[in-house]
Amino acid sequence: MRLATLRHHGRTHAARRDGDSYVLLPHTDVGTLLKDPDWRRLAERDTGARVPVSEVDYATLVPHPNKIICLGLNYASHIREMGRDTPEYPTLFAKYDGALVGARDDIVLPAVSERVDWEAELGFVVGRTARHVHRDEASHHVAGYTIVNDVTARDWQRRTREFLSGKTFESTTPVGPELVTADELDADDARPDLEIRCEVDGEVMQRSRTADLLFGVADILSYVSDIITLHPGDLIATGTPGGVGDGRDPQVYLKPGQVLRTVVEGLGELRNTCVAEPT
Amino acid sequence: MRLATLRHHGRTHAARRDGDSYVLLPHTDVGTLLKDPDWRRLAERDTGARVPVSEVDYATLVPHPNKIICLGLNYASHIREMGRDTPEYPTLFAKYDGALVGARDDIVLPAVSERVDWEAELGFVVGRTARHVHRDEASHHVAGYTIVNDVTARDWQRRTREFLSGKTFESTTPVGPELVTADELDADDARPDLEIRCEVDGEVMQRSRTADLLFGVADILSYVSDIITLHPGDLIATGTPGGVGDGRDPQVYLKPGQVLRTVVEGLGELRNTCVAEPT
Repeated sequence: MRLATLRHHGRTHAARRDGDSYVLLPHTDVGTLLKDPDWRRLAERDTGARVPVSEVDYATLVPHPNKIICLGLNYASHIREMGRDTPEYPTLFAKYDGALVGARDDIVLPAVSERVDWEAELGFVVGRTARHVHRDEASHHVAGYTIVNDVTARDWQRRTREFLSGKTFESTTPVGPELVTADELDADDARPDLEIRCEVDGEVMQRSRTADLLFGVADILSYVSDIITLHPGDLIATGTPGGVGDGRDPQVYLKPGQVLRTVVEGLGELRNTCVAEPT
Repeated sequence: MRLATLRHHGRTHAARRDGDSYVLLPHTDVGTLLKDPDWRRLAERDTGARVPVSEVDYATLVPHPNKIICLGLNYASHIREMGRDTPEYPTLFAKYDGALVGARDDIVLPAVSERVDWEAELGFVVGRTARHVHRDEASHHVAGYTIVNDVTARDWQRRTREFLSGKTFESTTPVGPELVTADELDADDARPDLEIRCEVDGEVMQRSRTADLLFGVADILSYVSDIITLHPGDLIATGTPGGVGDGRDPQVYLKPGQVLRTVVEGLGELRNTCVAEPT
């Protein structure tokens, strides 16, 4: 099943992909849909107006997650380029939902930053409450997969020893286009092996496979569930491979007008234009 | 004005302090009350059942803030004991709302941590949407002040270079008892000068004044509002002075049965018993 949150006639709707169109569902977004324990059956069964994929306007997939949890330093190639040691434990940091935008929305480059770049990531969304879940059981708590670009203001990330400031600028982080359930992917739930790629104006900047994740989906869900209860709709971004702009020589940062394209095999793509923040 | 969120007959209510009792208000909690732009007038005017202060059961003051933002390294005395340099910018990190408990609730010591200690903090709650707000205008966006104890699992905080893991364990962070508006305090809105104190079983562990904050309330609100929009109900914990258990020689950590008391002058007190997590 492929679900999306769509803008349609001034409202948002959860929607189910059906071939070349989406069927609008009664819930306002995928996050509220997932709060219903019966979400799978409702999403398969409910029916409403159809919108052709060619005319679709994607909102943020889960606009108000209780938690957005991001992983740092989770691909060997990115750990190397940032000059860090291989970690023993997952590095976790947060984002706030005001940072999220839809799969085709503009990315707003903050006026106060000179060094904004990209981090293509496999995301997953929690589908069932999870507390102290063993990694072997973790996949039962995952609703599905999506794409996140954890766009980062590197100058602000480095201002202090905590990442958060550089990671949560308003309207910088595209998520979507769809929530894709595991059965669509023919992939290992615990560690799906999908090509992940990021392009700036058509130039490939990152290319890796999600099987190279140091901590896989099941590891992360289990680990976090020992800290705090995960709720349906919670969004986890699993970290980025090498090739970020800040890690290149010479360094490359995003400019207004550039198009950032983020692709994960089987999950579709994010395509976002960078715009300057109005001042 | 002094507002609280109270549990009463199986529900929660926002409530206004009136002498030795609270008047229950129609909103379910202070966070939802603050979402109404007219919250000051509603909170002063609305009326309902009365609960004597002596019988009160405090829920978390703002149970589901859109954002919980914490400051690290914001008192010179704590910066010294943690062996850090004086920062040029506020160090920001997040907590998730599952970490919050009420002013008299138990603090659950996580089974997976051996090193949980305390961080008494002045908190403030946003009362009006704030985006790119100058520090001179910041006080107009503050609903009022409260107390937070940013209880921390030091072993988990140090597992990686990001604080989050050690800062957001389930049911560890008391907030309350009241939201106290600035006019009650006879204090400088931008940098209130209040005694702050933390005791473990009656022994004073931290004692300082909030005027020693490196970044004051107005500085913090203005700084964060350049990153992302602050919403009514957002909770900001301004950082802790010296005297945390982890910074002492020998180090001291919380044990089940101990009572953690956190006092900020004019704001009342948190009084929480530590309990072991059931396993």
